[in-house]
Amino acid sequence: MTGSDFDSEMMRRALAAARAAAVADEVPVGAVLVDAAGLVLAEAHNRVETDRDPTAHAEMLVIRAATARAGAKRLPGCTLYVTLEPCAMCAAAASFARLARIVFAAADPKGGAVLHGPRFFAQPTCHWRCVAEGGLEAEAAGAMLRDFFRAKRSRPAS
Amino acid sequence: MTGSDFDSEMMRRALAAARAAAVADEVPVGAVLVDAAGLVLAEAHNRVETDRDPTAHAEMLVIRAATARAGAKRLPGCTLYVTLEPCAMCAAAASFARLARIVFAAADPKGGAVLHGPRFFAQPTCHWRCVAEGGLEAEAAGAMLRDFFRAKRSRPAS
Repeated sequence: MTGSDFDSEMMRRALAAARAAAVADEVPVGAVLVDAAGLVLAEAHNRVETDRDPTAHAEMLVIRAATARAGAKRLPGCTLYVTLEPCAMCAAAASFARLARIVFAAADPKGGAVLHGPRFFAQPTCHWRCVAEGGLEAEAAGAMLRDFFRAKRSRPAS
Repeated sequence: MTGSDFDSEMMRRALAAARAAAVADEVPVGAVLVDAAGLVLAEAHNRVETDRDPTAHAEMLVIRAATARAGAKRLPGCTLYVTLEPCAMCAAAASFARLARIVFAAADPKGGAVLHGPRFFAQPTCHWRCVAEGGLEAEAAGAMLRDFFRAKRSRPAS
């Protein structure tokens, strides 16, 4: 499998996690964290509503799970696959964990912090710059988010 | 007690937490989260080393503890007292939790994200702006951090 095939496979896995989020009535964002050898260390979907925890974004959950598994605060050489451009919280956490790379699907002009707003990795206060690449499976990830919010708006609040 | 006296009392409590962090060989940052009535919901110090968790900043720990205690993902009307200017991760988490106010002690030109770098609350991608005020007990908080890093540099790595 080429690097690109592997990236696609991991992003499809992150999309499957995002689909599970939507079923659980969570904003459909999924993430997979993989080490340098291609081993999946953690996968998760957004759990903000379920856990009633505003920090329970998919990226935070996989970073925390993988550091707990590794027994180390840093994850050098690891790649984060996530279906939406990370926010400032998650981009900073990825930097603190020394992730090598972030591959995200859909861009997030409203809340993203890689290409938008804070552009965290371009700041002089960022001391570890993850290589970030967007656009892989962006259509599928974006469609899932649009469908979720459209359905939310069309039904009464629970 | 005036608002200002109360702020000072809470910041001294955050400083006490920071001192406990230094004793535990953690970067000395402490935080206290208080509700609109002045009730302390959570207090914590940085636990990155102890927990081997790069997200275990004092601010994240009090936000997570207080939302768990409240059983709610948002903490309207609450104030976060913290001894160091929050980073991008913690500033974003405070925004997601809908905190009303952040009172911090020392500014952090190297990693802060309120006055420096991403200036999170000034970004168009920030959808809830916590009122942020720096400088209270800044001398004491800054001295504690300087002493900690000076001691770190002067002894062999463990």
